[in-house]
Amino acid sequence: MSDFRRELAAQLRVDSIRAAAAAGSGHPTSSMSAADLMAVLLDGHLRLRYDRPDDPANDHLVFSKGHASPLYYAMLKAAGAVSDDELLGFRTFGSRLEGHPTPRIPPTDVATGSLGQGLPVAVGLALAGKRLDRLPYRVWVLCGDSEMAEGSMWEAIQHAGWAGLDNLVAIIDVNRLGQTRETMLGWDVDGYAERLRAFGWHAVVVDGHDVEAVDRAYAEAEGADRPAAVVARTEKGHGVAVVEDKPGKHGKPLDDPRAAIAELGGERDLAVSVAAPADGTPYRFPPGSADPPTWRVGEEVATRKAYGVALAALGARDGAVVALDGEVSNSTHSELFAEAHPERYFEMFIAEQLMLAAAVGMQARGWKPFASTFGAFWSRAADFVRMAAVSRADLRLCGSHAGVSIGEDGPSQMALEDLAFFRAVHGSTVLHPSDANQTAQLVRAMAELPGISYLRTLRGATKVRTPADEHVRVGGSRVVRKGDDLAIVACGITVDEADAAAELLAAQGVRARVVDCYSVKPIDVDTLVAAARETAGLIVVEDHWPQGGLGEAVLAALAEADVQATVRHLAVRDMPVSGKPAELLAAAGIDAEAIAAAARVIIGRTG
Amino acid sequence: MSDFRRELAAQLRVDSIRAAAAAGSGHPTSSMSAADLMAVLLDGHLRLRYDRPDDPANDHLVFSKGHASPLYYAMLKAAGAVSDDELLGFRTFGSRLEGHPTPRIPPTDVATGSLGQGLPVAVGLALAGKRLDRLPYRVWVLCGDSEMAEGSMWEAIQHAGWAGLDNLVAIIDVNRLGQTRETMLGWDVDGYAERLRAFGWHAVVVDGHDVEAVDRAYAEAEGADRPAAVVARTEKGHGVAVVEDKPGKHGKPLDDPRAAIAELGGERDLAVSVAAPADGTPYRFPPGSADPPTWRVGEEVATRKAYGVALAALGARDGAVVALDGEVSNSTHSELFAEAHPERYFEMFIAEQLMLAAAVGMQARGWKPFASTFGAFWSRAADFVRMAAVSRADLRLCGSHAGVSIGEDGPSQMALEDLAFFRAVHGSTVLHPSDANQTAQLVRAMAELPGISYLRTLRGATKVRTPADEHVRVGGSRVVRKGDDLAIVACGITVDEADAAAELLAAQGVRARVVDCYSVKPIDVDTLVAAARETAGLIVVEDHWPQGGLGEAVLAALAEADVQATVRHLAVRDMPVSGKPAELLAAAGIDAEAIAAAARVIIGRTG
Repeated sequence: MSDFRRELAAQLRVDSIRAAAAAGSGHPTSSMSAADLMAVLLDGHLRLRYDRPDDPANDHLVFSKGHASPLYYAMLKAAGAVSDDELLGFRTFGSRLEGHPTPRIPPTDVATGSLGQGLPVAVGLALAGKRLDRLPYRVWVLCGDSEMAEGSMWEAIQHAGWAGLDNLVAIIDVNRLGQTRETMLGWDVDGYAERLRAFGWHAVVVDGHDVEAVDRAYAEAEGADRPAAVVARTEKGHGVAVVEDKPGKHGKPLDDPRAAIAELGGERDLAVSVAAPADGTPYRFPPGSADPPTWRVGEEVATRKAYGVALAALGARDGAVVALDGEVSNSTHSELFAEAHPERYFEMFIAEQLMLAAAVGMQARGWKPFASTFGAFWSRAADFVRMAAVSRADLRLCGSHAGVSIGEDGPSQMALEDLAFFRAVHGSTVLHPSDANQTAQLVRAMAELPGISYLRTLRGATKVRTPADEHVRVGGSRVVRKGDDLAIVACGITVDEADAAAELLAAQGVRARVVDCYSVKPIDVDTLVAAARETAGLIVVEDHWPQGGLGEAVLAALAEADVQATVRHLAVRDMPVSGKPAELLAAAGIDAEAIAAAARVIIGRTG
Repeated sequence: MSDFRRELAAQLRVDSIRAAAAAGSGHPTSSMSAADLMAVLLDGHLRLRYDRPDDPANDHLVFSKGHASPLYYAMLKAAGAVSDDELLGFRTFGSRLEGHPTPRIPPTDVATGSLGQGLPVAVGLALAGKRLDRLPYRVWVLCGDSEMAEGSMWEAIQHAGWAGLDNLVAIIDVNRLGQTRETMLGWDVDGYAERLRAFGWHAVVVDGHDVEAVDRAYAEAEGADRPAAVVARTEKGHGVAVVEDKPGKHGKPLDDPRAAIAELGGERDLAVSVAAPADGTPYRFPPGSADPPTWRVGEEVATRKAYGVALAALGARDGAVVALDGEVSNSTHSELFAEAHPERYFEMFIAEQLMLAAAVGMQARGWKPFASTFGAFWSRAADFVRMAAVSRADLRLCGSHAGVSIGEDGPSQMALEDLAFFRAVHGSTVLHPSDANQTAQLVRAMAELPGISYLRTLRGATKVRTPADEHVRVGGSRVVRKGDDLAIVACGITVDEADAAAELLAAQGVRARVVDCYSVKPIDVDTLVAAARETAGLIVVEDHWPQGGLGEAVLAALAEADVQATVRHLAVRDMPVSGKPAELLAAAGIDAEAIAAAARVIIGRTG
């Protein structure tokens, strides 16, 4: 058995070298350090039907060090999931074998390549295994030692220890050498182990090139009553003298691949029979019934509260819905879901990167996560959102406490860039309702949306204007008030201000149309084009920085339609301070008075 | 002495309660848990001339748990830096005492309020003290226990341990209760200490309400030969029975402040003489001389390489310039600075949040940090950039490997949202040069820019078009080619494509103007307005998602000027894959052929 594993490891090295040589780029030396670790995993520990990647009972393998993709693909070849021809098409245009793994090649759950993300995602998969699917699959993660510098790894380690995820095994490939130099810990494998143990993990230190020792380490990890780490001392480029443990050999093909392959004993064509898991059916929460919440027109309700009420009701009807929060559930009101469905609520504490990654892991198993925190704090997880798009993940995110309208807490708590950020996520949907009935309908719509959807909610109460039976849709908008002199386009808190401005203008005989643009992406092009054509001009007003938000979304929509119009843009231009919401809206020039003043400029000049 | 400290602590509690009561909001209970810790710090350990906040020899105090601002401001009052009247103006519009601390109130170095950021910034201050200023000031940080869940705290802990920052003391206020529930570790102070020790820290566990014990703990921390943590077991709301260690009391004023103040023994008016540091003059690196680099027109040079060369030369002339990188310095080419000025280069390993925070700390001490990583990975530090703007920090950031033009590595490594993100940072400057001579001049300009400036560089080589003696300026652009039929507006790699497209069009008798819009924010409005007025329309082409980048910047500039024009926008609309740069530019529809095709539509329709 050990001989086969050594041969398999040699094949994985050779195939890593061949793939990178064919591509003319890639990371063979980072692959070679972990080849023995992965050979033993494939042959004897992993339980994964490569021919049935959607089998819910499968183990999961996450390559947190995604740049070791040649090794990952060499494993797929050994397991019969890709051909040698496909392997040698690595990194070519159209190949499923991209520079870093993505879900385009099954059974890859998530894209990696931004370091420090694989282990956090694995925590989500492991949580899903224990608390949602209730299946005994194990989640294996290959981590690099360089990425142990990323805080997100420690968010994951911390949470896994706290949650007692005994179905999670991290394999840490301590090859000592980063991209440009030695890592902080070098080969101090005991140092890693000590840190992991302090966080409640079971850690085993091992020579990562001793296949018998690795086998025993995995067995020990499998038997642990807590998350386990196999901390493996390895050599980068192991097996080929010219690159073995040499600096300056990161991320490039070998100079002489033929000689290297010869040194490794030549090409092999071993096939490995990866063990199959026992059959298993994932648990599903039985759907119940709950009427979607509605509110009477004229009520005053915060949209963040409506989010919580709507999410709790949605959870009753749809057993696939789960919720996560970053320890602010009484602010975002996801606490209402937590109270109604405690078994499907995940408290992620103040660790937004982990929260996002865990949601990615859960959706990879078919669950529908809704994750919430303050809109401002979603910026903490920006790289994870970016990578979630590469993972083709379906996620529903809610960000509360939008803009200066939150008042006294000051700018650190104000989301003023969230629309810009979420609009610039590939395939995203961006929603910013102005009232409770809109919010409730949009929460329901989000459950069925592909890609990453973002709902921005308000701290303070706003008046319900949308009748409960009026259809609210992704890509829609609402004409709050008719008028043909000019149009005011708003969303969220500024709808109230726009309506008040229209009232002021009406007293002066100016008829302003007010458009509630609750769907920022996709945006309601037809309604905007009509407003541009039928009025003297548009005022777009938002509680957000001028860049990348509603204003630029409106401009982009009109440009795309090739419709030209005067568009004036009111947004937050100076750094806000603490104060009452009304003071801050006025100071930013986005309140009713400011809107009315801008309207007078448009009308005065053109009318 | 202990009696005075106990009285001072009582005053800090009372004043915290008074400030929150006056404001009607705030976090008195989170302040009360740390009052004894801060009383002992003020009286006996901190060496900070509150009357001379700019004294370079001062100790630094960072409130990482920024929501304990009532306590922070109560300390300022006790130290004579604010009056009681100002204290009671907490959170009112115009007050320097905002909901969370900002540098508007000296001697506050940085804004806090997004948890997990104060300790990373403190690492930057401590690095500045040891390696740059070479002064014996100590950096004290008050941390909350909830924020220990943030990975960024562990990035800081890890680096401080590695770097041996014996001038750093973290005081961890373990009051057990977060916003909605108990923290993961509760009162397991030994658990915190064990973790910290595993990362190379000296940790002291203490009863945070025993002023004698706290005094001894600080003395022990001061004497440690490594970074030290005082892990203090405390009670949230300590001293007032109705809130003491009670859940549900986070972030709200006390119901009956008068009774609470009475329970604490009433108001006091103690003044504390905070110790002064010994006089000290910060070290400054002597300026040398180095000619700014230039390249000949027609040379092929990657702008990332030009960045490195220019930065190294800048460092020679300006001793205040320092550089940081996230372990990719041979990709960003900051390695050239590291080689030339090793004493001013900081390897931050793969920990982008810490890198950004450390740069914030260094600029707070007057240094001029340039920090670099892949453009895509700046998204990892997005919340830190956001908060740096609230801190009014002057930072220079470089992001390499822009867009699909990087090729085979695939989408995880491609910056496609960075322009959107950095444009939406308050007060930011966003630059994306197309050639080496532009890059070099912009690097020099960045050194003198206030606020956060971002330079986007390319992986591949581009042809030098800008003569070395041509002035390149923030807010400028360059007309690469004259023409009045239509205008193509590009930046970075798409300038090459735009010029090639113009060549194709010229062969068909179409004269396309090509504008190299290397300054994306601020943008050259005059040049864009002229292009809109003098041609049939604009094509904006960028290697970036359609949202928030150059295209929307151009639309916003034209709208602001109230100039109407046909604008067609070519950008990356589908998720890219691996491939050769040229294949990916073509697939995204942003190469010369695609630009020429779009031009024909504009000309065909309008001409």
